[in-house]
Amino acid sequence: MNYRRLGRSGLKVSELSFGSWVTYANQMDTGAALDCMAAAWDAGVNFFDNAEVYANGKSETIMGEALKKLAWPRVKYVVSTKFFWGIVEGPNTKNTLNRKYLMDAIDGSLARLQLDFVDLVYCHRPDPNTPMEEVVWAMHDMIERGKALYWGTSEWSASEIMAAHNVAEKHHLRRPVVEQPEYNLFHRKRVEVEYQHLYKDVGMGLTTWSPLASGLLTGKYKAGVPEGSRGAMPRMAFLLEKLTDKARNAAVMQLEGVAKDLGCSMAQLAIAWCLKNPHVSTVITGASRVSQVQENMKAADVVAKLDEAAMKRIEAIAGGLAE
Amino acid sequence: MNYRRLGRSGLKVSELSFGSWVTYANQMDTGAALDCMAAAWDAGVNFFDNAEVYANGKSETIMGEALKKLAWPRVKYVVSTKFFWGIVEGPNTKNTLNRKYLMDAIDGSLARLQLDFVDLVYCHRPDPNTPMEEVVWAMHDMIERGKALYWGTSEWSASEIMAAHNVAEKHHLRRPVVEQPEYNLFHRKRVEVEYQHLYKDVGMGLTTWSPLASGLLTGKYKAGVPEGSRGAMPRMAFLLEKLTDKARNAAVMQLEGVAKDLGCSMAQLAIAWCLKNPHVSTVITGASRVSQVQENMKAADVVAKLDEAAMKRIEAIAGGLAE
Amino acid sequence: MNYRRLGRSGLKVSELSFGSWVTYANQMDTGAALDCMAAAWDAGVNFFDNAEVYANGKSETIMGEALKKLAWPRVKYVVSTKFFWGIVEGPNTKNTLNRKYLMDAIDGSLARLQLDFVDLVYCHRPDPNTPMEEVVWAMHDMIERGKALYWGTSEWSASEIMAAHNVAEKHHLRRPVVEQPEYNLFHRKRVEVEYQHLYKDVGMGLTTWSPLASGLLTGKYKAGVPEGSRGAMPRMAFLLEKLTDKARNAAVMQLEGVAKDLGCSMAQLAIAWCLKNPHVSTVITGASRVSQVQENMKAADVVAKLDEAAMKRIEAIAGGLAE
Amino acid sequence: MNYRRLGRSGLKVSELSFGSWVTYANQMDTGAALDCMAAAWDAGVNFFDNAEVYANGKSETIMGEALKKLAWPRVKYVVSTKFFWGIVEGPNTKNTLNRKYLMDAIDGSLARLQLDFVDLVYCHRPDPNTPMEEVVWAMHDMIERGKALYWGTSEWSASEIMAAHNVAEKHHLRRPVVEQPEYNLFHRKRVEVEYQHLYKDVGMGLTTWSPLASGLLTGKYKAGVPEGSRGAMPRMAFLLEKLTDKARNAAVMQLEGVAKDLGCSMAQLAIAWCLKNPHVSTVITGASRVSQVQENMKAADVVAKLDEAAMKRIEAIAGGLAE
Repeated sequence: MNYRRLGRSGLKVSELSFGSWVTYANQMDTGAALDCMAAAWDAGVNFFDNAEVYANGKSETIMGEALKKLAWPRVKYVVSTKFFWGIVEGPNTKNTLNRKYLMDAIDGSLARLQLDFVDLVYCHRPDPNTPMEEVVWAMHDMIERGKALYWGTSEWSASEIMAAHNVAEKHHLRRPVVEQPEYNLFHRKRVEVEYQHLYKDVGMGLTTWSPLASGLLTGKYKAGVPEGSRGAMPRMAFLLEKLTDKARNAAVMQLEGVAKDLGCSMAQLAIAWCLKNPHVSTVITGASRVSQVQENMKAADVVAKLDEAAMKRIEAIAGGLAE
Repeated sequence: MNYRRLGRSGLKVSELSFGSWVTYANQMDTGAALDCMAAAWDAGVNFFDNAEVYANGKSETIMGEALKKLAWPRVKYVVSTKFFWGIVEGPNTKNTLNRKYLMDAIDGSLARLQLDFVDLVYCHRPDPNTPMEEVVWAMHDMIERGKALYWGTSEWSASEIMAAHNVAEKHHLRRPVVEQPEYNLFHRKRVEVEYQHLYKDVGMGLTTWSPLASGLLTGKYKAGVPEGSRGAMPRMAFLLEKLTDKARNAAVMQLEGVAKDLGCSMAQLAIAWCLKNPHVSTVITGASRVSQVQENMKAADVVAKLDEAAMKRIEAIAGGLAE
Repeated sequence: MNYRRLGRSGLKVSELSFGSWVTYANQMDTGAALDCMAAAWDAGVNFFDNAEVYANGKSETIMGEALKKLAWPRVKYVVSTKFFWGIVEGPNTKNTLNRKYLMDAIDGSLARLQLDFVDLVYCHRPDPNTPMEEVVWAMHDMIERGKALYWGTSEWSASEIMAAHNVAEKHHLRRPVVEQPEYNLFHRKRVEVEYQHLYKDVGMGLTTWSPLASGLLTGKYKAGVPEGSRGAMPRMAFLLEKLTDKARNAAVMQLEGVAKDLGCSMAQLAIAWCLKNPHVSTVITGASRVSQVQENMKAADVVAKLDEAAMKRIEAIAGGLAE
Repeated sequence: MNYRRLGRSGLKVSELSFGSWVTYANQMDTGAALDCMAAAWDAGVNFFDNAEVYANGKSETIMGEALKKLAWPRVKYVVSTKFFWGIVEGPNTKNTLNRKYLMDAIDGSLARLQLDFVDLVYCHRPDPNTPMEEVVWAMHDMIERGKALYWGTSEWSASEIMAAHNVAEKHHLRRPVVEQPEYNLFHRKRVEVEYQHLYKDVGMGLTTWSPLASGLLTGKYKAGVPEGSRGAMPRMAFLLEKLTDKARNAAVMQLEGVAKDLGCSMAQLAIAWCLKNPHVSTVITGASRVSQVQENMKAADVVAKLDEAAMKRIEAIAGGLAE
């Protein structure tokens, strides 16, 4: 496993990391989570991604239990959480980054994770209804109080990220060091175009999510929505249209030829493709079985096979279909 | 119940809130306070206003007891307190915002409220004998030390509020986000004229008090001062002249016609009128009986009835009598 | 007793205050100290001055014991301490304001005083061997950590005080608010000339010491050094020349005429004269007996008798003899 | 023993100090360490140098045990530690100054040293892979949280040190006050040339290491590498080439004449020579036996004997051989 700097920061994360979105609590209990985390750890993963909203807090509870049992030295692993949607009902706790919510949320997450601090804390989405100064002060305070080491954003626009840097610079507060965007063969513009100047100007790192485009890139949806798949879950209905897009599923079928020629799975191809982007610090992968973790981790070995010719072939197939 | 942002801050408060001035301890014990707070909560109220000086600390003690029994999740409600008059005799504890008093006062209030922090802490009045830098540092420190989330002012001039912002901006300290002024049909100039530029320039929110002009707007003083009313209390003597003003009581009688036509009580009309001002974040209401709370809360429904014609009619009656 | 603002700060101190230099531990035990403090308190004194070096820490220990027994509300009294000379031998603990010494010293003083914080903490002398930035950061940190409320200096030059303000202003640290200089009829130039612009420019307050010029102004040394007096103590030998100065002792004899005409003691005259200066926030008085405390406190009543004519008469006698 | 200011800071260190590199744990147990430290203390040493990496943490453990038994007043001695190499395996804990490592490392060191704080904390080497802002914030935070009093660097370039000052100045963070470079007769350029402007511009102090050039200056390697010497240890192999350099060993033989004429040992000569440089705050000496400590400490007396003539003679012998 290679380790990459999280942007310009001094923190190094394994280029493949392990996230708990979708899977924890919904599909996995603590035992399964522990087994998957142990498998990822054995493969060299040091970054474990989480969020308050994943399974409504249960994903943090499960990861906390697993971490306690795994008993790795705290300094050796990196844990994240993210705040925005809230898990308590009310006007100040849903879709917000106000100070009241954030200060309450971090304590809740740390309790569930059974940790003194998280390494990374993210603003899970931008909040147009809280001033940037209030958000940056709150994130700064989490670091000041020792509850987090670094902070970042997720799915913020380049302009919003720069606004956060401006407030931090002006008032001598901690800057965000990382953004967590969706990034895969069908979702590229934000990472490749919109954020372009941020890598140089503020040294932003990327922890990217959805390398498989919610499973679409594995070919799972070629023949419609399989029973038991994510596309079939009612709470994932918002994904359905994209998962069953004809042009994209056709491209997926062509990509299977590339994967076959490279001797790898579609998942490995899709993950390795993300890693070809040097601005990506780590690709967050998900899995509900140990074998799937091990399979995903082999994607790191595929990167070397993605030479110029292979990349051109992929671009010809999928380049025109990306957002 | 609607929720409004506290000015430009990310905090949302119910447009009607519940205050303990006058009533707690003086007219109510913990049981009555708890019942009224529960009724307000049931109607959607999330902001409960208090101050150190109300009933000389007992108002905080009673609210603390009630909150403990109500056991709402801390993140769901907003509690305030305010400092200026002090409840200990002495040169450093009366009519002051000096650091020594403020640092001592916040600890006393939190102990009485049985809370780790208040959401809002106000400077209850301006103090010309303490430099603005000392005041802003002390308020900032309450936030830094986790004893408050936001701070504001009460009955400060626009110029004093701007001075606080200037100190905060210069030394990178937390800014005030809210002002608590008197606001009602007979007391409008500060909110509508003096503060006008602050809403845009610094995004100040308003938590307004005395929507009923100490009861005058309910018509209670049309025929003189009733026994047992606020106007009859010796410690409220300073209100007497205003409460028995003839022109105003004549206007009140005309407003009763408006209220009748709108199918609402005078209290509801007066409260709803405050809410028509978009700069008002919340109107603080008081009550000593559950039925009164429920009655007040219906004011929110009256706002929609206050169309342009109704507002013009009210303006014609009372507009010329306002300070 | 009148209370004066400590310069531009919001803190108010009794215009006469009570200090423990010379007397505590050397001449007084806890019981005597307690009695004197109680007498001062009864006369309206709210400021009790101390320093680490007074009686090598024992003065703080005695005051701590006395305060514990007196059990006044903490918010009602103001306690100071001062650091520079150190009470532990060594290169980092004597005649210094380095961070290591200061951070250690404040903890020692608070332990001896049995207090969570002092209201005022002074740099007892300037230290040319520690950079101003290090000193101001350390004093700021005492306030940040809640170990002191305000800080000041003692016997610093105007230029050193301004240097401290410059560092504080530049790095957004707490400014000093008070200076403790010697001030009496024979020692005036620093307070009246050197500091002149600081009162307006930075709003500095003054807590002055030695109103009786080490006893000289009481007439005690007119006929040489009495046995048992301060001038006769070996550790006070440095005072001897001044105490026996002929011209000054001659002036003292003339001042006795003024005191007689005003119907007051020499001590009262000398103390009241200090209070005529509006830049003086408080005159620190010392005493080893309750009767002496009570006698000193009556100086406040003498101020009104010091009209223009009396002041001119005093100036004619002593004006030319002052440093 | 003389004490020198640590650059422009207010901290004073004994001009000879005692370090634990190489010796502790590797050659000494707690008892021997305690005896040597006691001997150094008796000779006036107040600074004891350490680092996390020395003997992989065991050097701190041994010093902690010794300090506990010696029970000197905490304010009287100065202890350092240093971070960079880390003692836990992993991408974030080796050769780094990232925030995650530093925040973890200081807690580990304090636990091993059984101290609440170290006086000096050093960045043991520069880290090109962590931004200066992240490093300076972390060092600042150690001081803010009371875990260290001052911070510095070791073997940083002048340009890196200035970069740290720039970040500190811009964001109002604590500046580094000291650099720990190698300095001896054969290793001079950094201290004498590269750092020259830093002494005046930022007031940097120096705690220098390797006064004996790893033993070379004692003459130990004149006839090859003796068994049991540092040059013979496998983990010190990187020193071997320099230790057996012919020209230098020849110079050493000539220097023995100088030492003889001055009536001192070679070690004393080499140490005293370092102290002639006024920018040196303290020379860190090492020893594994009490007699060696006592011998080293006498170097302070040799300084006076190093007059202009002696210095010229030394320069003529060794000046051309220095890096």
